[in-house]
Formats: sequence, structure tokens, C-alpha cells
Amino acid sequence: MNTIFSDRIADVPRSFIREILKVSLDRSVISFAGGLPNRDLFPAEEIKRATAKVFEAYGNDIFQYSNSEGDLKLRQYIAGRYKEKKNLDVSPENILITNGAQQGLDLIGKTLLNEGEGVIIEEPGYLGAIQAFSIYRPRFLPVEVAEDGVDIAGLKRIAALESPKLMYTVPNFQNPSGITYSEGNRREIADILAGKNTFLIEDDPYGELRFSGTRRTSFAALMPERTLLLGSFSKIVVPGFRVGWIVAPSHIFNKLLVAKQASDLHTCHFTQYIIHQYLMDNNIDVHIGRIVAAYGGQCLKMLDCIEKYFPAGIEHTRPEGGMFLWVKLPGKQASLDLFNLAVKEKVIFVPGDPFYTTGIQSPAFRLNFSCVDQNTIETGIQRLGKAMEQLGK
Amino acid sequence: MNTIFSDRIADVPRSFIREILKVSLDRSVISFAGGLPNRDLFPAEEIKRATAKVFEAYGNDIFQYSNSEGDLKLRQYIAGRYKEKKNLDVSPENILITNGAQQGLDLIGKTLLNEGEGVIIEEPGYLGAIQAFSIYRPRFLPVEVAEDGVDIAGLKRIAALESPKLMYTVPNFQNPSGITYSEGNRREIADILAGKNTFLIEDDPYGELRFSGTRRTSFAALMPERTLLLGSFSKIVVPGFRVGWIVAPSHIFNKLLVAKQASDLHTCHFTQYIIHQYLMDNNIDVHIGRIVAAYGGQCLKMLDCIEKYFPAGIEHTRPEGGMFLWVKLPGKQASLDLFNLAVKEKVIFVPGDPFYTTGIQSPAFRLNFSCVDQNTIETGIQRLGKAMEQLGK
Repeated sequence: MNTIFSDRIADVPRSFIREILKVSLDRSVISFAGGLPNRDLFPAEEIKRATAKVFEAYGNDIFQYSNSEGDLKLRQYIAGRYKEKKNLDVSPENILITNGAQQGLDLIGKTLLNEGEGVIIEEPGYLGAIQAFSIYRPRFLPVEVAEDGVDIAGLKRIAALESPKLMYTVPNFQNPSGITYSEGNRREIADILAGKNTFLIEDDPYGELRFSGTRRTSFAALMPERTLLLGSFSKIVVPGFRVGWIVAPSHIFNKLLVAKQASDLHTCHFTQYIIHQYLMDNNIDVHIGRIVAAYGGQCLKMLDCIEKYFPAGIEHTRPEGGMFLWVKLPGKQASLDLFNLAVKEKVIFVPGDPFYTTGIQSPAFRLNFSCVDQNTIETGIQRLGKAMEQLGK
Repeated sequence: MNTIFSDRIADVPRSFIREILKVSLDRSVISFAGGLPNRDLFPAEEIKRATAKVFEAYGNDIFQYSNSEGDLKLRQYIAGRYKEKKNLDVSPENILITNGAQQGLDLIGKTLLNEGEGVIIEEPGYLGAIQAFSIYRPRFLPVEVAEDGVDIAGLKRIAALESPKLMYTVPNFQNPSGITYSEGNRREIADILAGKNTFLIEDDPYGELRFSGTRRTSFAALMPERTLLLGSFSKIVVPGFRVGWIVAPSHIFNKLLVAKQASDLHTCHFTQYIIHQYLMDNNIDVHIGRIVAAYGGQCLKMLDCIEKYFPAGIEHTRPEGGMFLWVKLPGKQASLDLFNLAVKEKVIFVPGDPFYTTGIQSPAFRLNFSCVDQNTIETGIQRLGKAMEQLGK
């Protein structure tokens, strides 16, 4: 049976997260397993109004085929926001609209990766990136991430041996760990890669969701010619519209555009227009402020409850933003064993295993705090604490 | 510079059609070069009403992430329509929603093609398919298409030598030629492939746009275990929403789903819901009837004008549906030379060259009749006739 498929498709790991989501359909189960933004915060009424305006303003153009680059107005908006918020000079001509940032990963793989080429990947790292790149059959070169970023010694060891094609990073509020690369860590990475033919992917879906600490310098400022910056409206407006983007140097952009065209001609521009209209008519910073207040409060609550209900010896990250935190069991305990106990206590999370390319039994796991209110967080973490007490008994 | 890119991206031909479209921005130029459905026939008001209903009915669910398979209601509708219109038994579980049928081609390539494997491709053939498959670096095995379908002798020669992985077909109103495979041609193809490990792609975006002749048997009925059937709402509702689908046997479906997830998580379900609502509230057959009446009339007008204004010795197809017809210049005349003369006469079309994988100087070219009213057709074909008279002088 296997011979009918391409070798590449056999390499793609199944999404364990999707399997877990099936358990979460039981409404009595509290789920910290999700990776979703909080649906209660979607600007539904504003989007309805924007949609009506788009119908009014553009006539039948919104229904026709469109260009592969994406809507120019939206690309101009994105460029303007980079300038305003990060003092980053990005031309709209270097912004390619994609079906969420996930498609950005696929297009980068398509455009740049030959089989067997090196891809530096965070461990733990974003499962969707591992899946997207696996299609192009690279060699994954894992580097550990800790509280302040990538393990620099590990990165230097890799860089001493070879010039990997890509380095994949989520430097702000990383998925799954919630950590943020420090300023120093970023500069060291840029220095290490300076002599290399390596492109750094700065995947930044959560960057605007900062609830403490201060903004760090983007790799797109530190090494503009070598950075592929991914962004998305999924976490700050709505994910269902599937609108994200890649910022790429012009010679890379041109090839990404060919790959985009071959992949699906263009991203739905109806939803691009709606998002643009929404951004024109509303103060997105006020809206982001609401998201940040909610997620920040929920994160703090989760941290408090962890102190209160988890047994001693548990380590965890302290995110400055985003949607996730990362918990590590003491000793050699497997988070998958905890998962099985936790399901019986009616609480779930994502065990660490799928976030590694090396097939380990991870003692760590990911907790999502964006989709659960503070009372539910208290109950859920209490249940999880109970499951932990049973572990190893 | 070239070494930074993957080998695969270097293999993708540029879209000559896109280059041509730049010329067509001049409003005094009559374009038969487009590949677009007629925007005047989009059901704009009905879609607005469907959108309002979707906002009403689904609340914030329409903005959240969704499943990779696509909206179940829509997949059930598609399965029902196959049963009703073609007596085809298709389960909703075997239907994967994609970003237009173009993404279907990409996902099939991703899932099935190893580098160097054979892909039988029509010559002339759909440029978007050539682009999509090129990414996966197959060996293209061209077979000629004529008025009644694929050249059977050519197909037998290929089949005697090897088992290609894929055979790509547009059996109804083919792009670019407008021809339709005869019933006998389809059965011969199914017979030839019967002992092979070859999957046949039946790309059918235009199938519902029949204005004369009778419906032929689908490959999905003749060889269900070996057919990957692609469909789309682009030509019968609107293309801008980017909603198409693949029908695939279950074991293939499961792998296509992994590829879909890795590529972009899922297709925008907001637009899927709108299309479904539109289909529930309106009689799509009445709408398709309007499109067919318009395209049919325009095609007939174009055929009449060709008789009237083109010099003797010109061959052309007589489409039973779709959006295109195919014209062949006599002798060794190059359609690209005609193109340059035609631009001066302010009329354009797509020269045949990009529809071949073998890099020929084609004497043939494609004319689109879906986007031009009958008066414009008369003027445009007259201009083209003038350009033809200058050819070879």
C-alpha cells in the first residue's frame, strides 16, 4: 500500500493535537489542550459592518479571480503598521498574503528546501512547522529553547558543522513554551548566522499579544536580508478567515509568488477586503488591548493556581504574552502518563512529545490559557494537581 | 543566486497568461486571453443575502479555526448533487474541500508524486496543472488531445513502457482546447489503465457548463478506485471565494488530509458556509442555465465570426460547453508571431506555447468567449482576422 504515496507524505507526523481535540468534545472535560484564540473576543459586529461596506463598495470585483500577491491595500496597511509599531521599513511589494501563516511555512519549504537540507528547529517547537517542512524532507537540526531563547552553545555546534538552509523560530511567546527570546539571544543568533547562507524564519503570530515586559528587536531589523517574517490576523482579528502573510526580500518574494500561484492561485480576497475594512473603521489597538487584558489575566490566574495546586518540584515558564505556558514534571516522569490520569480527572493538555522531532518521551507539556475563563482555570488546574499526585503511585 | 532555491521551484514555468493580462489592462484592447468566468453573471444579491443569514445563524463559530476536511454540510450537498446529476455514488467522507481545484492539484502532487515519476499530461494542457505538478519534479509524458479526446495510440505507447503515477485530464470542455472526450475515448482510457498503478485525475471545473451535446460518463464511474475527481464552485457560483474539492478513495483521502493540514490547516469556512447557504436558498440549475445560455450564445457567435473573418485554412474546435475554443494556423506559422501583430490591432489571446511541456513553437492558440459580449466578439474576431492577413507578409 505504501508504495503508491510519495516518500514525503510518509514523513509527516500526524497531528496528535487533533486526536486530543476529540476527547475535548466531552463538555465536562476542561481543556487546556487547545491552540485557539478566545472566540468570545472576536469582533463579530464590527466584521458584519465591514462586510456590508465591502459589498457596497466593490461590486462584483470581490467575487472574481484576483492577483496572487494579495490585496494591495491590505499589504500597505501591514507595511504601515510595521513602521508604526516596530519602526521596521517593509515595502508592501515584499508582503505576500497567504492562507494564514501556516501556508507561509509551506511556501517557504516549497521554495527553498531540497531534500536532505538542514532546518534548525526549536525543541520544543511548533508542530505545524514540523508538519509543513516534513513534506520537503529536510534534516531537522534541533536546538533547545529555554527561558531566554535558543541554546546558543547548541546553535554554535550546528553552525560550526554546516550552513543549514533554514532556521525556524517563534521568538515571541513561543508555541508551545510561551518563552520569549531575550535581546541578547537574538543578537547572538544573528551573529552566528551572519556568515551563513541560512534564512531565519521569524514566525510571529502572537507578537502583538504582550501583557508584560517590553518589545524586543525583530530579526527583520537585525538581519533584514536573511529574515522571512511571518504574520497573521488569526490571533488579533479572526483565524477562520485564513489571512496571514510573509515578508520576504524581493528575490525570495518572486519565487514565493510562483509557489503561491502553483499552490492555489490566490488567497480569498473577499476576506482580505473585509479585514482591511475592519481595520480602517476600528481601532485595532483598543481591540488588541481587550485580548491582552483577558489573556494576561488568565495567564496570571493559571500561574497562581499552579503555585497553589501543583506538587513541589514542578518547573514552568512565565510567559510575557501569547496563549501558552510550559510545565515540566520532575525526574523522568512522562507527560503522556499524566495525560491518561488527567483524562480521568476530566482535564486535558498537550503532552510534550509531538513538539519534538526526535521522538522523545517528554516530561513536559503545554497548557493553553486563552480559551478558559479564570474560574475554569482554577478548577482545571486543581484537577490537574490531583492527577499529578497519582503519578508514579 | 540560483543555489539558494530548491530545485523544484526552478522547474516551474512562469505564467505567460499573467504576463499577457498586463497588456489587457489597456481598455481599448479586446481580450480573448482571459480564463475568467463572466463577472456580470455572479449572483451578487443572492450571495449578500446568504452572507447575512450565515452571520445570523452561526454566531462566532464562523470566525474560529475549523476542521481540515471542510464543512460537512457543503460536502453532503456536493455528494447529493453527484448522485442527482450523474448518478455517481460519492460519500461526503471522500470529499475534501480545497482552495479551488488548483489546490487539489497541489495536494495530489504532494501526496502522490516522487521526483522523476511519470505524469501523463494532455497536450495542449492546462497551464495551472503543469505548474502545480512541476513543483514535485515529475517526468511529463505528453499525449495529444484531438476533437474526441486523448490520442489512444500515444497513450498505449506510454502504457506499454511504464506505469505512470498520474494521468491528468480535463475531459469536459478542456482548457485550453474546448474539446470533450467521447464516450468511447473514455472507455478506452479506462481499459488501458486497468492493469496499471496509475491514478487518473478528472479535473472537471466546466462540466456543468454544457450548451450542446450530451453528458458523458465520468471516469469516477468507469474506474472509481483509480479516479481523483476535482470540482469547483468557481465557474458556477464565484471564483473569488476559492472553494473547490477533491473526491478521492478513502486511503488516498486520508493522506490528502495530512497534506491539506500541513499546507494551510483548512480552507476558509466562512465562504464555504456562504456558498452552502446560497445553494440552499436558490435554484442553482436556474443560475447555471443563465450562464450556459450566455456562454453558448457567445461561443456560437465566435464560431460564426471565425467563418466570416478568418482566412481559409484555419482549423478550430467546436466546443459543447465551457469557456474556450482552440484555433490552429495553417502550415508552420507561429501563434506568437500572430500575437504580436494582434496586439497592434488591439486584440489579444493566449498563444499555444505555454500549454505544452515540450517547449514547442505552437501554431495554435486559445480564444476565451466567456467574458466578451457578442458585439465585442464580432469586433475582436474581425481585428484578429486582419492580423492574420498580415501574418507571413
